[in-house]
Formats: sequence, C-alpha cells, structure tokens
Amino acid sequence: MKELNIGICGLGTVGSGVFDVLSSNSRIMFEKSSCEINIVHIATRSDNHSCDVGDIQYSKDVFQVAKDPNVDLVVELIGGTDVAFELVMLAISNKKHVVTANKALIAEFGSIILEAAMKADVNVAFEASVAGGIPVLKGIREGLVANKINWLAGIINGTTNFILSEMSVRKTPFEVILAEAQSKGYAEADPTFDVEGIDASQKLAILASLSFGIPLSVSEFFVEGITSILLEDVSFAKELGFTIKHIGICREINGRLEARVHPALIPDSSLLAHVNGVSNAVMVNSDAVDTTLFYGPGAGSKATASSVIADIIDVAKSRESACFSSLGYPIDRLKRKDIMNIEDIECGFYIRFVALDKAGVLSEITTIMANASVSIESIIQRDHVSKIDHVNVVIITSKIKHSTLDPVVKKIKKLKNVVDEIVLIRVEHLDQ
Amino acid sequence: MKELNIGICGLGTVGSGVFDVLSSNSRIMFEKSSCEINIVHIATRSDNHSCDVGDIQYSKDVFQVAKDPNVDLVVELIGGTDVAFELVMLAISNKKHVVTANKALIAEFGSIILEAAMKADVNVAFEASVAGGIPVLKGIREGLVANKINWLAGIINGTTNFILSEMSVRKTPFEVILAEAQSKGYAEADPTFDVEGIDASQKLAILASLSFGIPLSVSEFFVEGITSILLEDVSFAKELGFTIKHIGICREINGRLEARVHPALIPDSSLLAHVNGVSNAVMVNSDAVDTTLFYGPGAGSKATASSVIADIIDVAKSRESACFSSLGYPIDRLKRKDIMNIEDIECGFYIRFVALDKAGVLSEITTIMANASVSIESIIQRDHVSKIDHVNVVIITSKIKHSTLDPVVKKIKKLKNVVDEIVLIRVEHLDQ
Repeated sequence: MKELNIGICGLGTVGSGVFDVLSSNSRIMFEKSSCEINIVHIATRSDNHSCDVGDIQYSKDVFQVAKDPNVDLVVELIGGTDVAFELVMLAISNKKHVVTANKALIAEFGSIILEAAMKADVNVAFEASVAGGIPVLKGIREGLVANKINWLAGIINGTTNFILSEMSVRKTPFEVILAEAQSKGYAEADPTFDVEGIDASQKLAILASLSFGIPLSVSEFFVEGITSILLEDVSFAKELGFTIKHIGICREINGRLEARVHPALIPDSSLLAHVNGVSNAVMVNSDAVDTTLFYGPGAGSKATASSVIADIIDVAKSRESACFSSLGYPIDRLKRKDIMNIEDIECGFYIRFVALDKAGVLSEITTIMANASVSIESIIQRDHVSKIDHVNVVIITSKIKHSTLDPVVKKIKKLKNVVDEIVLIRVEHLDQ
Repeated sequence: MKELNIGICGLGTVGSGVFDVLSSNSRIMFEKSSCEINIVHIATRSDNHSCDVGDIQYSKDVFQVAKDPNVDLVVELIGGTDVAFELVMLAISNKKHVVTANKALIAEFGSIILEAAMKADVNVAFEASVAGGIPVLKGIREGLVANKINWLAGIINGTTNFILSEMSVRKTPFEVILAEAQSKGYAEADPTFDVEGIDASQKLAILASLSFGIPLSVSEFFVEGITSILLEDVSFAKELGFTIKHIGICREINGRLEARVHPALIPDSSLLAHVNGVSNAVMVNSDAVDTTLFYGPGAGSKATASSVIADIIDVAKSRESACFSSLGYPIDRLKRKDIMNIEDIECGFYIRFVALDKAGVLSEITTIMANASVSIESIIQRDHVSKIDHVNVVIITSKIKHSTLDPVVKKIKKLKNVVDEIVLIRVEHLDQ
C-alpha cells in the first residue's frame, strides 16, 4: 500500500470537486490503486465554500500548506499566476510534489517550475490544465510514447464550442448565445479570455510542449477568437459540408512548427465536427498510430477533479521510482523550434463577400483567382436575404499560403461590384 | 536512465510492426522516456518475415526466449491460446515481464496468467489487445482512476464497423461488402470470428474486468453478430436519425452487470454514430467525469505496435516500484458480479415487418402494443420496393425489457396482414 498526505489550496469549483470526489470514491480508488490519499491540510483565502472539512487542519494562508511538514503533495487550485506561482515554488523548495489545474500558470511559468521540480526531485503534474476531465496529456505522453507526433488539432475551449454549436443548431447570432452562456455560467461576465482565444492558446502551449518537445510559451502563437463569426457564415459552411469550430492546431513541418488558434471550417466527415456543446476533444496524428481522438468534458467541478486526482495517484505510485515528467520530455531535453509565421502557413480558405447581382461578376473574380494560381474547390452564389439586387458569393479554395491569397483578396475588394467587407475563415481538412 | 532487454516472439503483422517502430523511433522514445529498450532475442516459428534482425540472437523455438537469462521482458505476438499460454506461463515462472496483444489469451486465461504474475512479482500488460493503437485501457485504468464507471459502449471490431459503414454510405448489401473486405484484407477468409461478434466479446471481457473489477470471462455475455443486418434496415435507421453499429456494452445497474455484444441503432447525435471504416472507439461514462470517448485505429501493424511499445516502456519505468496491475484492480481484488440475462435488460427496440397495405393494419398493431404498455417513439410506413400492395412498417419503442416485448412481437407475427419475418434490432441512446 502507498500512502500520500496531501494539502489542498483553494476550495472553489475545482477544489470542492476534488474534496468531494476524494471523499466519496476513496474506497474504489484504494481498491484500484492500493493508494491511500489523506487530506491533511486545507487552505482557502475565503470561507465561502460548502465542504465539510471536519477536523482536517484548516488555514486561511495557503502558504501554510506548502510549509506543513505533514504534507507530501500540494494541490494548487487557487488560480491566477501571482500567488499561485509563489505557492508552487515554495512547495517545490520544501520538497513537496505539486498537482495543479492552472493552465495559465503552466503555460507562462511552466519551464521555471519544472526546472525547479527536477532539481528538487519532485513531480509537478497538470493533467487538469488541458481539456478538463479528458486524460489527454497522459494519452499523448504515455499511450503514444512510441510515436513521433505529426500534428494535433483540438477543440479546447468549452465556451467557444458551446457558442458555435448553438449558433449552428439554433440559427441564432453570436451576441444572443453569448448572453445566454453568461447567464448559464458557461461564459464569464468578461468573456474576453475565452472568446478571444487566450484560454485556448495557453492549453495549446501545453499540448505543443508535450507533443513536440518545445519549451512552454504562447508568445509566438497566432491567436484569433470567434467574435467576428457571423450566423450566415455558419450556415454557408454547413451547406458546403463543413462545421465552424474554434480550434488550436500544432503541426511539425520539416522541423518547423505551425502553432495557431482560430476559427476554422472542419469537414463534417471529421469526428471533430460532431463535438458539440461545452465538450472538448483533441485529435492527434502520429507516425505509428495515425489518428486518435480523446473526447470528453473540458470543464466542470468533478470532471476536472477527476484529472487532478489521477495526477495525485500517479505521483503516489511513482514516489519510489524516479521522478516522472509531466511533459513527456524531461525539461532539460526541450528544444526550441522555429514557429512559422501565420502568413507562411498553408490551409484552405473560406471567402465570402456581397456583390451586386450583375452579369460577369463571377467571371471577374474567378479570373483574378486563376491569374494568381488560386484553385477553387467550391463556389456558391445566393441571393442576399436583406439586400435586393445583392448576392452572397462564397468560395472555398484549395490549400494556399495566406501571403499568396492576401493580394487576391485585396484585388477582389477593389472591384466596383463587390460591396462590404470580405469574410475570410481558414479551412482545415485535418488529413495530412 | 532505465534499460530493459526484451525478447520478441512472433514476427507477423504486429511483431514486425514492433520491430520496425522500435528501430525507427528509438531516439525519440529515449528522449521522451529516458528508457533504452534493447531487443536481445527474436523467435519466429516461420522464416517468412521481412525484418532485418542483424546480429540479434534468433531462435526458431519461441520457448528459448522465455528461458534466455538476458531477457527481462517477453513480447508474445504469436497469437492463438495454446503455445502462447505455455510461453507466457514459462516466461512468468522465469521472472520475466510479459507484454501481449493477444485478446483471446487474456480474455480466456487472463485470470490464471495475472495471478501467476502477481505471485512472481512481474507485470503482464496488454494495451494492444483492445482497440489496437488507442490507449484506452490506460485511459480507463489511470486517467479515470478516481471514477466509478457507470457504463461503457464500444465499437471494438474494425471489420464489422467497416462493413456496416460501407453498407450505409454505398447502399450495398452485407455479402458484397464482406467479399470486398476479404479481398482488401480487412476480413479473414473465414470471417466468423469477426462478423459473429466473438472478437468483440473477448475485448469486452477485458474492458469489463478493467472497468468493473470482475474476473476475466466471456462465458455469460450475450453475443450477436451482424450477418442478419439488411440494407433496408440500415436505410430506415438512417431515416429515423440513427446509425446501425456493432457495439459491445457493459453497464452496472444496482450491483448487477449488463454485458452484451450486438448490432444496435445509435442516435446520430452521438459521436459513436460517426465512427466509420475500420476505426474503433470506446465511450466511457463515469461518475466524476461523465462521458469520455477514446477513438483511433483498432488494428494495423504499426498502430498495434505503438500500444505494445507503450506497455514495454511502462514496465521499464515501473520496474523498481511495485508491480502495476494492467487490470486497474489487483487480481486478488476482482469480484464476480451477477451478469444479467439478456431478456431482463432494458433498451429501445427497432421493429420492422412487411404488412399488406390495408386499412386498419397500423391500428391493430398499435393496439396490441398499447395493451402491453409498450410505448412507441416513432413509427413509419413505406411502400415496399419490390412487393406491390405491401408496406414496410418500422417502429421504434421506448426502453423496455425484451421479455416484455417478446409476447407483443409474437402477437404481431400472428396477424393475418403481417407477412414475412419480424426484424428486431436494439436501440441504444447511451444517455443513462
């Protein structure tokens, strides 16, 4: 039997989930793992929680947990990156293992934290920081250990996926769904972090480091949110056999990396197109296995707690053996790779604009595209719902660099029959 | 650094994949895991393989590998259950770890093997035995360790999924697709093992033991294949918003277990309905996380090799710590649970029959069903393609025990306006 004494810092959504699941499922966990996990210290800065902590030692100062000689492992669930960073570093310097669900902390300070952990010979684990309850970091790190990862593409933000799913199913615009998501608690009062893609970029940083052995960093990633996605584009995409999803993609091409977060048209033949609501899914393509997908809830109190506890049990089991690396690669073997500029990345493009319904418009446009060697995969023209004598023109191109497409778009924009802005959304076939 | 000397028995499809992936990806695996895996002995009963074994010790007698003092771990990839069982037991008695991809061996003799392994303090791992390259056993055992599993449902046989997918997409009958699958190598010359569900039942036995802590056994499972699935039922199901899939289901209800393998209508809103071709997927519902899904290739040389190697690395890493249990539960904690009779299991039913196109037929049938308190969720009536004055009647019922439905079906069958046999396929909403 292995025994591990843990201290929990923070009893918010995830913290109370960890407390509840550890309490209710302790017997089944012991039966499966032969590990006994004892909560010996709890600290919260606010008394506003519903857990019955009984006679477990309780502090208002989270640093007391990191200093407690009875604690073997500190569970950091206070969030943020200031106090959390200090707390984690203190725990490590006191030779305590750390488990955290804090993606911002790991994406931003992961390299410093993991280096300190390696020197102190303790483990820092963060399965819950990406895709909530889905054991995807473990799946890539251990299940796919024999593989060279070619690419991964993930729906890794539940809020944006909920909004896009509802827009598609209920044919309701972004603003209305966002307001609903806020009232249901699926979106924050200030939704910037989610809808602008920042949350997804932090998770992608962790997935990219784990999969491609690069240092943790989001700074060079291209990041675009979903605030400009219009209902009509969701509908046109559907008509053409695609679903618009907000995804994070990372792909290695000749030693360089694509790393980007943005909305994209995904073909309906891909499982990713059918991942709806607040669910998350990560698709991984690797050289031996080819394509796998890990699906499940990306957030939620007990789902996230499940991943936190899985990490705790892994630490309990690996205590006597050498330190395991949560990144797959040991921190001193990570190597920087050149992150490609978004202009140089090839993908398909969805182009939509409003034109006057006159003879010759399509011919003008297709000539411009042909002259620039841009191949067209599909093109549709539809009467505009609200503007008489106007049509929507929708084009899907073959794979092309944005830098090649950009001058073409500028030329189309200047045509006197083309009115309004040009909508441009990437298309990902996920097949190479 | 950890070093492990392995001996490979069998260089068929999977064996040569293991040899190739270990050779080509040894550097990346070492970088990730700090484990060095050395192939020190290879044995094949036939010389018919394409691996360049160089100066690795080579035997025609697989038992030489299990006796070789230089071998720490025996990789059993010869298949079958006779020699393979002897080989594995000999390896264990010589204190060697074992990794195998042999589902029949584990489903049938797993309990004996794992008990011997526990006594000898060695590991026996078999990730590749279920769902090929998908790390689903690890996902359930370790990723979901904090959870009580409620149910799981899996597409765990690539051959049947390929046949059903092609029948649906190409509107081509079973026999034609089976012949094609045989010529492409997706189905064996004698396809019984796959199309009658035997292969899936062995995999379900492993998943059930891992998820519900029961001893390994297939003997009490209800098993039905896909040979009687007609093209018209695939089409009617589609029209009603379902896809017919061959699935293995295991679910705990009040301490008793459902465990069954059969074709079922899956709602198109479920990701499982979109798993096509030879792919596999296992959906797991558990108390903390709710529903997760693990998707990927269920077979193939390198995909299966990926799982075999992941097991080898896990063994290499856990050598100094106590023996890990591949079943999640230690073998001495497994407990028998009552397996429910198929008659007592509740699910929806798809019922189709041909009736004479006369007034009052539907009313007769719905009256019989109402009298037996069978609720109807949908009902459609369509002209029969080839029989004039005949109609197809298709009914989907709410959840009901087969024992309640059976007398109703018998009554309908006796009606003088109902001709031919009655088709009955289960419907699984996968939501509870």
